[in-house]
This record gives sequence, C-alpha cells and structure tokens, in this order.
Amino acid sequence: MPAASLVCFHSLISGAVEHRLTSRVKHWNQNCSLKISASLSDQSFQPVAKSLPITSKIETLLDSVKWDSKGLAVAIAQNVDTGAILMQGFANKEALAVTIASRKATFYSRSRSTLWTKGETSMNFINVQDIFLDCDHDSIIYLGKPVGPTCHTGAETCYYSSVYDLLGDQEPIQDHLASTTLYSLEATISQRKDEIDSLKNGKPSWTKKLLLDNELLCSKVREEASELAETLLQNEDKTRTASEMADLLFHAMVLLKVKDVKMEEVLEVLRKRFSQSGIEEKSSRKRSTNQS
Amino acid sequence: MPAASLVCFHSLISGAVEHRLTSRVKHWNQNCSLKISASLSDQSFQPVAKSLPITSKIETLLDSVKWDSKGLAVAIAQNVDTGAILMQGFANKEALAVTIASRKATFYSRSRSTLWTKGETSMNFINVQDIFLDCDHDSIIYLGKPVGPTCHTGAETCYYSSVYDLLGDQEPIQDHLASTTLYSLEATISQRKDEIDSLKNGKPSWTKKLLLDNELLCSKVREEASELAETLLQNEDKTRTASEMADLLFHAMVLLKVKDVKMEEVLEVLRKRFSQSGIEEKSSRKRSTNQS
Repeated sequence: MPAASLVCFHSLISGAVEHRLTSRVKHWNQNCSLKISASLSDQSFQPVAKSLPITSKIETLLDSVKWDSKGLAVAIAQNVDTGAILMQGFANKEALAVTIASRKATFYSRSRSTLWTKGETSMNFINVQDIFLDCDHDSIIYLGKPVGPTCHTGAETCYYSSVYDLLGDQEPIQDHLASTTLYSLEATISQRKDEIDSLKNGKPSWTKKLLLDNELLCSKVREEASELAETLLQNEDKTRTASEMADLLFHAMVLLKVKDVKMEEVLEVLRKRFSQSGIEEKSSRKRSTNQS
Repeated sequence: MPAASLVCFHSLISGAVEHRLTSRVKHWNQNCSLKISASLSDQSFQPVAKSLPITSKIETLLDSVKWDSKGLAVAIAQNVDTGAILMQGFANKEALAVTIASRKATFYSRSRSTLWTKGETSMNFINVQDIFLDCDHDSIIYLGKPVGPTCHTGAETCYYSSVYDLLGDQEPIQDHLASTTLYSLEATISQRKDEIDSLKNGKPSWTKKLLLDNELLCSKVREEASELAETLLQNEDKTRTASEMADLLFHAMVLLKVKDVKMEEVLEVLRKRFSQSGIEEKSSRKRSTNQS
C-alpha cells in the first residue's frame, strides 16, 4: 500500500497495520520459530491497534507531519536511558503509524521500498517509550530501549566513527562510540580497569588506585557524599555544589565499575521506579522501616 | 560556490571556507555590532582552517560520506553533556567542512539554498566537540555544547511535542521535552519544588519532604552513599548495587534542586576535568592534601 493512498488513518490502523503486523508474525514464524516464541512472550509487541482510540486526533497527527516530496521524514532512534543516538532512518506515514501502534521502532527502507521494523530479523528491537516531533513537524525521535546492539555491525550504536579521530595523526580508535559526558567518563574508567587487568604499562592514576583498593574507594564515596551535603548545610555557593556532586558521581562510578554495573542499569532502575511514581513510594517505605 | 564544484578540499578549506567565515563576520559586523564583539572574544570561533593539516585524509573523508542525490546528508546536533537531541538539519559537503573547521554546527538550508551556521543570527551557537559518522556514512552527529536555547521558539531543543501526549485524552503537557531518564527525573523533582513554591495542592510526597528538610535530605545522601559502599564491602549482588546507586543519585539530585544546580552543570564540570585528565589529578591532589 503506497503512502500516497493513506487517506484515512482509520482504514490504515484497522486494516493495513494489523495485516502487516500479522503477516510479519507469520513471516517470522516460518523463518525463526525459536525466536518467535520469545517475541510472542513479549507482551509489549501485541498489536495495540485495537485498543487505540481511532479518532480524528490520530489522523490529524499523521497529517500534521511535514512529509517530504517522497512522503518521508527523518526518524532518529535514541536510547531513553543513556541518551545515545542509536540509528537514524526515515519514516513514512505508515511506518510512524506502525510505531505508534506496535511501540517497535519502524522505518521505511528507501533501498528496499518497504517498511522495516528494526529487529525483525535480528530480534534486536527498539522498544519505544515515547515519540517526539520537532517544532517543524518534519523530524521524529523514537525514544526507546534497545534490545541488544542496534548496529548491523554488532556495535551498540551506528555512530562509531569520529571525524576528528579519522583526521588525526594517530590510528583511529576502534569503536569510538559517540558518547556523551557520563558515558565517556564510564569508558575512561573502564579503560583504566582494562589496563590493570591486562597488566599494561599505563600511567599510574588515581582511578587505578581506587579500582585496586575497595576500602579507600568506599571511604571516598562516603567522604564525597558528606562534602556534597556540607555545601547545603554550610550554604556554600552553587559552583561548590556542582563540583562536589561531580566528585561523588566519579567515585560512585568507579565503584560501579568494580561491581561491573553500568550506569545504564542504574538509570533503568530509576526509570522503572519513577515512571510508576515508585521511587517516592519506595524511599518512603524504606524510611518508615528505618524509623520503625 | 555550489557543492557540486567542490572537487578539492584544499581549495575549499583555504579559499571558500575562509571567505565564507570572513564574510559571515562582516555580515554580522554590519548587522549586530554589539553581538559581534562577543563572538570575536570567543576564541573557539577563530577560523582554524589554517592550522588544519590540509591532507588527502580530509578530502577522502568528505568524499567518503554518502551524500544523497541532492548532495545532502542528515545532520543531528546533540548536547554533549545531557545527550539531548537539540535539532536536526541537513549538511552538504561544504557545511560539514565548515563545521570541521569552525567547530560551530553548520547546516545547509534546503528552503534558502544556502549554508547556515546555527546561531549566526541568534548567537545561540552549538560549539562542536566532536563529529561522528554512522556505519553507512550517510548520517552525521554534531556532538556539541549549545549556547542558550536551540529552538527558534526559545525552547531548549526542537523536540517538545510528544505523540502520545497529543493522542491522549488530557491536554498535552506544555514544553514536554524529549528527555532521557536522568532529565525526566530532574523534571519530576522540579515539578515537586514548583508545587511547594506555588502552594498548589499536590499529593504529599517523599521528594517534597526532602525538599523541605535540609537535615533529613543530607542525612539521606550520606546514608545512601554508605549503603552503596556496603554493597561492595559486603559483596552484595549487582542488582543491589544498581538499586543503591539509583537511591544515591535520586537523593543527590534532590539536593542539587535545593541548591538550584542542574545535572548539566555537574556534567560540564566532569567533562572539563576528565577531558584534561584533570579529575584524576584533582582527586589525587585533594587526597595528598587530606593526607598531609
């Protein structure tokens, strides 16, 4: 069904989308019976089209997107926990409709002229938590949680080639993912750990000292938390608070590394808690227990 | 100079780019003399083309991008500290070359058929820290630090319309930015603070209790840090560590709110420190002082 013929969302969502979702399941069933059972046990992949209110709101929304002359808009998939940009593709009206209904990031493949749900072959879906349109309504973010690596190369994201690395004098760093500050720091701490593990001659560093001495590390985590608290109690300036929080975060992240826990796992815990208003309840519960 | 005529990066970078940068400065000089002085005092905006090695590497890199039939590729600007996707535009060869040289996010405006450096009018530049290409070399990330809001509407980013909000029964939330977990939590904490400040009748909550009681908040920050440390010392399982780190992060972020400090400021401190290998030096220095 070409995008141009999508006049009414009602027929789209109740007809074509359901048909497509059903035929996809059939296709998988024929080709990967083992994998399909995992997929079917994932309740979030049940077509939710039936439960969606089929209102003019949806039709209006799809029509409000400024599709280009080919009926496409840019669609960017972003990891809801880490903020990493996972991949970028294009969506047509049908791809966006399928994503809204199935909550699996779905694109339009320009080379194959067909819809394409990320993960339909690899099972590395991107489970969509929310979808955002930009101010001009011609660019889309699929904010979601990836199952496994996103890139077909096996990399966590498709963006692992730094232009300045490529232009530099040194050999480009392998798998230098486009990382934001928190994850660059996490990578640096991991690198120190790798140097220790591989007995490589790296520079002596404070991070390595912490990684090797649990007592020291734990006393630093406690000390930095206390210093952060003091900036409030002693009414110190904001710059001091930001600085102490940076210290606390760094030392706590070294501890995470020793325990082999990723920041992404911590953020997942937070997301699950506060999306259910759970963090407050949990903390409150804990407090009552402490006080009892 | 049309993109099609860009045969050699040497002439581009030494000729057209410098000319363009110079003419931009002239243009600004005529139109916003007050603003231009601020721009000129920003050393990072000095054309660095002269200091760039003009090698075949650069030419090869620009040629390696899979420009579409119109000579364009998708360019996504992302906040290096928060991970927020700020905006999305298109780059042609010249726009990418200018961004590499000037380290200001530069796009090709399809409607005006001209290069466009974000901030050239508003002065809200995006200072580029790194540039990434995806696996197919047809999508670009400008990873940078925005000066002020990115969107022409004054919003922090261009993505503030949630599809599920728009489809919901309730009035869509104003300025519901596409936020990842950490910043959604920060927004929730801010909301509780606003409810207190505006004396609105919201539900009683643990966050509000913490926001109103500095002694309690500080004792919780210390307690959670201690519990995180215990997961290492007592060899508790990874799930417990992630959970305690989530608690610590939450309570520390409430403290940041009381002090009116944003996580973005904390991450900026971390970026500046560890990009200069400074965090280790600083921590080491602090430790020596403590021990002295």
